[in-house]
This record gives sequence, structure tokens and C-alpha cells, in this order.
Amino acid sequence: MTSPVEVGRRRAAVVGTGLIGGSIGLRLRAKGWHVTGRDADASRARRALELGALDAVGDDPDATVVFVATPVAAIVHEARQALARSAVAAVTDVGGVKSAVVAGVDHPRFVGGHPMAGSEQEGVDGARPDMFEGATWVLTPGVHTDSGAYTTVRSVVTELGAEVLALPPERHDDLVATVSHVPHLAAAALMALAADGAEEHAALLQLAAGGFRDMTRIAAGHPGIWPDICSENREAIVKALDELMAALSSMRDLVVLGDRPGLLRALERARHARTNLPGRGERPARLAEVRVPVPDRPGVLAEVTTLLGELGVNIVDIEIAHSTEGPHGVLLVIVDAEAVDFVRDALHRRGYRVSSTPLDT
Amino acid sequence: MTSPVEVGRRRAAVVGTGLIGGSIGLRLRAKGWHVTGRDADASRARRALELGALDAVGDDPDATVVFVATPVAAIVHEARQALARSAVAAVTDVGGVKSAVVAGVDHPRFVGGHPMAGSEQEGVDGARPDMFEGATWVLTPGVHTDSGAYTTVRSVVTELGAEVLALPPERHDDLVATVSHVPHLAAAALMALAADGAEEHAALLQLAAGGFRDMTRIAAGHPGIWPDICSENREAIVKALDELMAALSSMRDLVVLGDRPGLLRALERARHARTNLPGRGERPARLAEVRVPVPDRPGVLAEVTTLLGELGVNIVDIEIAHSTEGPHGVLLVIVDAEAVDFVRDALHRRGYRVSSTPLDT
Repeated sequence: MTSPVEVGRRRAAVVGTGLIGGSIGLRLRAKGWHVTGRDADASRARRALELGALDAVGDDPDATVVFVATPVAAIVHEARQALARSAVAAVTDVGGVKSAVVAGVDHPRFVGGHPMAGSEQEGVDGARPDMFEGATWVLTPGVHTDSGAYTTVRSVVTELGAEVLALPPERHDDLVATVSHVPHLAAAALMALAADGAEEHAALLQLAAGGFRDMTRIAAGHPGIWPDICSENREAIVKALDELMAALSSMRDLVVLGDRPGLLRALERARHARTNLPGRGERPARLAEVRVPVPDRPGVLAEVTTLLGELGVNIVDIEIAHSTEGPHGVLLVIVDAEAVDFVRDALHRRGYRVSSTPLDT
Repeated sequence: MTSPVEVGRRRAAVVGTGLIGGSIGLRLRAKGWHVTGRDADASRARRALELGALDAVGDDPDATVVFVATPVAAIVHEARQALARSAVAAVTDVGGVKSAVVAGVDHPRFVGGHPMAGSEQEGVDGARPDMFEGATWVLTPGVHTDSGAYTTVRSVVTELGAEVLALPPERHDDLVATVSHVPHLAAAALMALAADGAEEHAALLQLAAGGFRDMTRIAAGHPGIWPDICSENREAIVKALDELMAALSSMRDLVVLGDRPGLLRALERARHARTNLPGRGERPARLAEVRVPVPDRPGVLAEVTTLLGELGVNIVDIEIAHSTEGPHGVLLVIVDAEAVDFVRDALHRRGYRVSSTPLDT
């Protein structure tokens, strides 16, 4: 099924050739990669081939990286299969929840991932090579993650146009409950309310202007992925739903009491936060290299990258220089020059001895 | 302050020259109107003049239509002043709540209005002549509304590019609580939740992808208008907030119970409703004229237009042909030819004798 290995052409494989898998294929092929893919639905894999998202349908034992882009429920099984097919490939996934997946696969060459991008379209026909341009892509390295597998996945994700943010899997799941899962459920709830009213008053939906359209856009997405997500991330979703209901209940109190200053304060605060939402893919003007001598023990890579992730510091590039003379190495981390003091302080507090150099850009 | 009356140039006035007043001025001037405007803040009126949204600053006793585009709390006073300045002008407003305004002004030449358009920008610098293109613009004629004033306002609003939807003021207020006021409060609540979390985890806002950005966009709007709206439309807002909290609580139950089919049904229903949201400004392919002989008594215009409004039927044009021979007239209503049977049935049920003719378009 696969093409002969061409000299110099990097090889990737995609399992699950829908919207995300297809977009990965389109982009990597545009960057000169050879991409093999398969899908539980063979017609979908053929469609991905037709659309130019794949070079070949099937498996590729020579792929250096495998993206598992199936529904969440199938990830653990597919990732294990992919790991078994190769002794060297780094394997990653694109599922919306991470703790259960990472715990389920539990392999040094597996790095959990989640691109914070997508579209309300579904299927490979909605795939675009620029789907991930400037998007945040979470990776969840753990204590046992092989540093070579991590840097491979990290570098391919960067090639897809995304900014990598490393986070512990549990933290990822808490945070996406707040910024993705619960907003999705809230959009559906708002849309249902309006649809209920519309059965009585056809006028209602005519009044739905830009704000309402924006707020409910994600409710047009394919619902098929949500039962899995709600099941795998139940606790965090319930917690965030409770927080949202409590926040709405406070708003209700302000309205009932006619508390104008309180209402203004609440809305002003939300406005301030919304206005300061970080933009997509802003490249820092100046870069600096932070050198972190590290004991060559498992977990250091995960600790350093997820610490910076939690601090919201974007790692522009990362490399591990293994020492030839002993069990030590140096982690070379490229960050925004403006964040360098902050990064050094944070790492110092964790006991790392850190040096840094500005880079000419 | 005003320019001399030019022969043939239609004259409008705007009270309150911010985002909406400025956009009205820009569009009407582009359509050849002479537009005079003033603002409680004189520098804002001057800015509107500079930006080309006005021909002159001040009042215009010769204006045939006056738009009161002030904050909600000032509308009743300003509308009364405008009515007192002219014996003939039709006066309308653009406030987000209607019952209190319409009851407060209570004048045959006043027609309450509300354009379902806007932007998270504020002030006249955000004004655009195409602000209302394809938007729904609610008018709230009442029993005592003068039919001449109504058709004047209706025709100018159509010239602004909007589609008029007539509704009783109380109905408008209920419906906008669901599609505008509560969504705004919910966006602010979601944004506040994320901002709370972000104080601990800087990573959180980096994860905010397109869906979250869409949902919270309106929270970036100027909060200044909301205390008035929440006070004037308190009851409907509290009712809709309670409905939203109940809907979220049902979602929570589905998540806690792991009720996959229930969750799928709820999301599928929301998706269906979102996908079927009527598009902005779709022009019907074929039109029909519905002729409604009406007694020349007050309230008929409001009854017929708001009945069609509640049914969600777009009135493409409307004209009142007064009979020369008695106290009767004929209401000529142009609607989508596909809606004509529906319209005739609805009017028949209200006791009107209706005939209709397809129009060549």
C-alpha cells in the first residue's frame, strides 16, 4: 500500500483522516513530507487521498511521526497499535482530553497533543493546510516521555504553523473545560433557549444579530465528539459548569437588585479581560536562549516545559544537548527576550542553574 | 446653526451622534439626505461633522424624520423635545428596550425602533454607512401610531439597508432578553471565569481558541449601556437568565449521568437550530402583493404589521391607500410570494378579508 521510501523525504503517518488529520496531511505534504494515512472508514481515507491530503493509503513503518486523529474513544487503541508497528516513531494524538489518553497509552514514545483549532465544518472536505497557523497546540510530556520523541513531535507541530504550549495533562483538561468544553455546552444551551422561543415566535430568530450569531456559532459543530469528551473530562466539566452557573446567578442578583455600579464593574472586568486576550501567533521581536544544565534523568524535560507552559511563556524552540562525558545534558530553550528574566527566576526557584544569551534575529 | 433648506433635498435629524447615530448620518448623507445632528457632548457632534456623518450641528425644524440615538435613559426626554420642535416630523429611536420608551413618549408621531446591529467598538469613530445593511430593524407601532409617521420611519429605515420587523414593544423586550441581553451577560460571565483562572494559570488564555473568542467577543463592548438596559428590561432578563441556568443545569445532569444519547440529542437539536438561523438580508425570489381592506381606525396598521412580525414574515414594502369615499382604506403589503398563503390564512383568522396578486420582479 505504501510508496517506496524516497531518499531525503521525511515520512509521517496519520490515523484518522477527517478534518484535523486531513489538515495535518495537507500541510505536511506542502512542506515536502511523504504522508500515509488510514481511516476506519475506508472511503474517507480515499477521499483524503483524492483531496491531496495523503500520498498513500495504509500504514508506513518508516514514518518518524504518527498523528492519531481519531475520535477520543479510539485514541488509546490506535496509539498503541502505531507504537507497536514501529520501534522508533514518535506517536502523538489530537484529542480534546488528555489525562485519560496519556494514562491509557503510557509509553515513552507517546506524547499527548491537542491543537486548539478546528472549525464547525466536519470531515476531510473542510481540511485546510493553514488550519493550525498561529494556533496554540498543547503537548503533554510526562515523567517517562522520551526527549527525542518530544522534540520530534514539537518540531513537526511547529512546522504545522502552531505554537507549542507544554502542560501537564490534568492541567490541560481543567483549562479546556473552562475555555472550550463548557463554552460549547453554553452555546448549545443558548441556542436551545432561542429555538424553544422560536416555536412560538418566529420573529425571535430574525432578531438574532451578530452577537448571538457569534456566541452560538460553535453550536453548529458536529455533536458526535462531545459524548466522549464529556465522559472523559466529566469532573472538570461539571466543576466549570457549576462555576458558570454561579457567575450567572451573581449577574442575576445584580440585575434584580438594580445594582448599577456592581453590574458595571462585572462587565468592565470582563471587557478588560476580553480586550487583553493574547493574539494568535504573535512572534516576539527579540529572542533569547536559556541554557538549563539538567541531570539526565526522566522527567526534566516535562518539568521545564510544562512549568513554562503554565507561566504562559511561549517556547519558540527547544533542543537537548546531551553531554558526552557523563549523565548530564543541557536544555537549550529559546524564548522571547522580554520573558527571559521571568523564566530564569522561575527556574531558579525550582533549583535549576540557568544562564541566558540574547540572540540576534 | 442649520443650512438653508435646499430644494429637493430630504432632511433628517439625529440626536446623539455616537456609533449608531453616526452610522445613520453617514448612510443618509450618502443617499442624498441633509442630516443635522447634535449630542449632549458637543465635541462628539463636532467629530461627527468632521467624519462626514453630518451636514450641520444643531436642530433642524424642517427635518421630516428624527432619530433619537442617545443612551436609553435619555430617549423619552429627547424624543418629546424633538416632537415639540416640529409639527410634522416622524420621530423614532434606536434604544435596546422598547416598552418603557414607547409608554414614556406616548405620541402618534413617535415610532419606537431598535436596529439589531452594532459593534463592539464605541463612538462615532466606529460608525460605518453599511452598519445596518441586511440587519433586522424592529419597529414597534402602537394603537395610536399615526400611519404616515410609521410609513415615513419604515421607508427611511429601509433606505438605511435594514429589514423592518414590526413587533409589539413588550414582545420585542422579551425576545431581545433571549437573543441579546442574556447572551451578553453570559459572554461576560464566561470571560470572567476564564480571567479568574488565568490569574493562577497564565496558560489558560493561550488556550482560548476561535470558539471561545467568538463567544466572548461581545463582552469587549462598552459596558456603559447595560445598567440602563438591565434596569428597563429587568423582568424579561431575569426570566431568560433563569431559563439559561435551567438549561445549563440539564446539561450538567446529562454529563453527570453520562447520558450519551441525551447529550447527543440536546447538541443535535441546538445544531439544527443554529444551522437554520435565518440569514441576513436574503431577498425573496418572487414577491406578492397582499391587499387588506381595513377600517380607517387607529391600531389596524400596528395590528397587521406586528402580526406578520410575530409570524416572522418579512414585509418587503407597505403602503396605505386611503379611500376617498369613506372611512375605509386598503393596506398594500408586499411579501415573499412563498409566504402569501400563510399570510392570508393568518389575516383571515383575525377577521380581515384579504386578496393577493403575484408581482413580476
